[in-house]
Amino acid sequence: MDNNTKQQKAVVVGAGLVGSLWAVFLARRGYQVEVYERRPDMRAAGYSGGRSINLAMSERGWKAVEKAGILDKIRNVAIPMPGRMMHAVNGDLTFQPYGKDGEAIYSVSRGGLNLELLRIAGEFPNVRFFFDHRCVDVDLNNPVVTFEDMQTNEIKTVDAPLIFAADGAFSAVRYAIQKTDRFNYNQFYLEHGYKELTIPPGPGGAHRLDPSALHIWPRGNFMLIALPNADGSFTCTLFLPFEGETSFEKLTDNAAVDAFFNRYFPDAVPHMPTLRTDFWENPTASLVTVKCAPWQWQNRILLIGDAAHAIVPFYGQGMNAGFEDCTILDAMHDELGGDWSAIIPQFARRHQPNGNAIAELAQRNFVEMRDLVADPKFLLRKKIAAYLHEKHPDFLPVYSMVTFSNTPYHTALQEDDAQNRLFERILSLDNIEQEWNGPAVETVFRQWREKG
Amino acid sequence: MDNNTKQQKAVVVGAGLVGSLWAVFLARRGYQVEVYERRPDMRAAGYSGGRSINLAMSERGWKAVEKAGILDKIRNVAIPMPGRMMHAVNGDLTFQPYGKDGEAIYSVSRGGLNLELLRIAGEFPNVRFFFDHRCVDVDLNNPVVTFEDMQTNEIKTVDAPLIFAADGAFSAVRYAIQKTDRFNYNQFYLEHGYKELTIPPGPGGAHRLDPSALHIWPRGNFMLIALPNADGSFTCTLFLPFEGETSFEKLTDNAAVDAFFNRYFPDAVPHMPTLRTDFWENPTASLVTVKCAPWQWQNRILLIGDAAHAIVPFYGQGMNAGFEDCTILDAMHDELGGDWSAIIPQFARRHQPNGNAIAELAQRNFVEMRDLVADPKFLLRKKIAAYLHEKHPDFLPVYSMVTFSNTPYHTALQEDDAQNRLFERILSLDNIEQEWNGPAVETVFRQWREKG
Repeated sequence: MDNNTKQQKAVVVGAGLVGSLWAVFLARRGYQVEVYERRPDMRAAGYSGGRSINLAMSERGWKAVEKAGILDKIRNVAIPMPGRMMHAVNGDLTFQPYGKDGEAIYSVSRGGLNLELLRIAGEFPNVRFFFDHRCVDVDLNNPVVTFEDMQTNEIKTVDAPLIFAADGAFSAVRYAIQKTDRFNYNQFYLEHGYKELTIPPGPGGAHRLDPSALHIWPRGNFMLIALPNADGSFTCTLFLPFEGETSFEKLTDNAAVDAFFNRYFPDAVPHMPTLRTDFWENPTASLVTVKCAPWQWQNRILLIGDAAHAIVPFYGQGMNAGFEDCTILDAMHDELGGDWSAIIPQFARRHQPNGNAIAELAQRNFVEMRDLVADPKFLLRKKIAAYLHEKHPDFLPVYSMVTFSNTPYHTALQEDDAQNRLFERILSLDNIEQEWNGPAVETVFRQWREKG
Repeated sequence: MDNNTKQQKAVVVGAGLVGSLWAVFLARRGYQVEVYERRPDMRAAGYSGGRSINLAMSERGWKAVEKAGILDKIRNVAIPMPGRMMHAVNGDLTFQPYGKDGEAIYSVSRGGLNLELLRIAGEFPNVRFFFDHRCVDVDLNNPVVTFEDMQTNEIKTVDAPLIFAADGAFSAVRYAIQKTDRFNYNQFYLEHGYKELTIPPGPGGAHRLDPSALHIWPRGNFMLIALPNADGSFTCTLFLPFEGETSFEKLTDNAAVDAFFNRYFPDAVPHMPTLRTDFWENPTASLVTVKCAPWQWQNRILLIGDAAHAIVPFYGQGMNAGFEDCTILDAMHDELGGDWSAIIPQFARRHQPNGNAIAELAQRNFVEMRDLVADPKFLLRKKIAAYLHEKHPDFLPVYSMVTFSNTPYHTALQEDDAQNRLFERILSLDNIEQEWNGPAVETVFRQWREKG
């Protein structure tokens, strides 16, 4: 605990994953932390699934969880997924490992993780939670935040000399900052929506599919995925355009839903006894990407997590990116002696390009995931990439940089651009299908290494 | 006057250029028009300059003004600028015509034009103005708009079954729509700001510079421009980065301002006796681009003008684009028999790509304007383009498509991309400096025409 911060007040808006983790970090340093959250207290109210894609925890997430002191608790309920299992329409299965031996991403329950973080934060005497508090206004200049107590309809103003806005993709704090001069802001929705579905546990509580994989049914412009849960079930997510020939708008009754699933996901249907109910009861939700700059207001308000960089879920990095914000901020706190007037603008400036980069990578990975099987060129590229990595171990797949390292996302994006240029050249070589490990590939690779 | 619209109410939010013009169009068709405007009534209060770039009226603007029945009134005070006059640091002048003989853009006073439009609109008995009314909330579903009367602080709710939001780049109506699902929104600020300055009339009220040109002092990363006014003065605008080596933040006192102007704009300084006063009294304003989609909320609210597509001023198209919204809507009103539930979504879908296109073209033209003299490649390109246009009259400069025609902006942007590809090839020909009108140019041009 730093002595100089003992009395300093810090307001955290939002008690989701990033807000509650960040409250833990602040509490450990002795700040007087006040956390305001629109929803009820999950610890009392319980949590429901329904509208959250399962999380895939990877290196950046683990690093933060370890720093927060809950590594073991989370690891015990996390399910390793060392690769993806692709389901063809005819039922053929293809397994692609995500990394090297021992490397995996981990399926974690969003609600369970949030609950654990709230409990940890709640154990600190210097953390106070205010649930059912909706942020309705931010007076940027004073600085005062106004909340509505949703149980009493009371309006409260809170002095907030230091604010961390972890209030998500639709951040109320960010909406206030958006109207100030020279704030760049972009919200972009995919044409696809998503809907959560379920594969319940099989007989005796066993998983009905191999639990050591992230399952994908890639179908070109749409896909189904399934992540294992600790209770033997899988959480499935259907990603499908809102409108068009094959789309949510066309699935208007049970007959249409049945026909769609039987046609495209026939091997999944027998495992989905509650398909119809799930389909009608669960909402069709949209997928937004938010980019903005700067991430701060003066030196007193900092946007973190989805409030600063909401991304689509296709790289499994949304939570990992938000957690990385916390570890980087925590390291900068040491580096700059806890001087927020230096930490906030430096963090915002240095780290913002990483937010843009993971947003871009996540959008690119959607194309990869849904087109995976359909494109033989892509599978050939994967084969050549693996071959090159074996011959030149320092030639790392971008997926590994993003998932199994703490390399800045911006660097990973640059590498992705560079590798795209490399494989454009390789795949245009004569007879590349036959000579995928031939000398011409090696020549192109060496030229690329030397000259880019 | 259409009989079927006689009783229908239309709410226009904003009485700027586009809002007041659109009120005229609606009034002519017999709608019961209510126009709400945050600012006081310009007709009573007068208007002030200070923070508005002079307007360059071109084809799309004239077309709308003619339809509104005020062509002659505006033409009488508009000053034709058939080309741009570039000022080198050493005082050398170069004149580049904008189009063919007789083609010009016209310098118009923003305030004067707005006043004229308000007067015309005010002559209709079916138009009611509500000035000093700030839009504070839009209940999208009801549909009700809430205004604050800024003189009485009274809050009024207005039933608004049909709303045209012409409330500018920072549209309150759009902020309400922004929070709805699947609304794409992007606000982007240039690193440059601008400041208005003045060249007063010379002795006897004569213009101190040639009034039949838009004057530009292009200096690489920044520039000064000047547009003639009817009273013998010029309105000047300095475009300069906010931060950096040569920037507004470095111009902190009279000595710095004097040194900067003497170094970069020595031939302008003698004509700017009020430079210091203007510099400190006029604000440094920012330059925003706004893109969004869709431009409508359901079939009842339509964003028009800057509320839908705020752009930077470098193509002189901001007002022209907003006025074009009105003429296109008016034509669609005929086409679709006044059925707003068809007009609004069709206008939004068809016309939105044109908003994106002119935003992009305006940003590109900034680079052209400020780098104009500095880059000999660019001047060579201009020379070859003129030569090709003479040989092939249907090879039109993009500037002419945008400025002197009603070609959709989207088509003009595609042509700009295509011509950029053409000139990339032409300028990489051997000895192009000498052989700029040689057979190799003609060959490349023919190939490009055939295959793109």
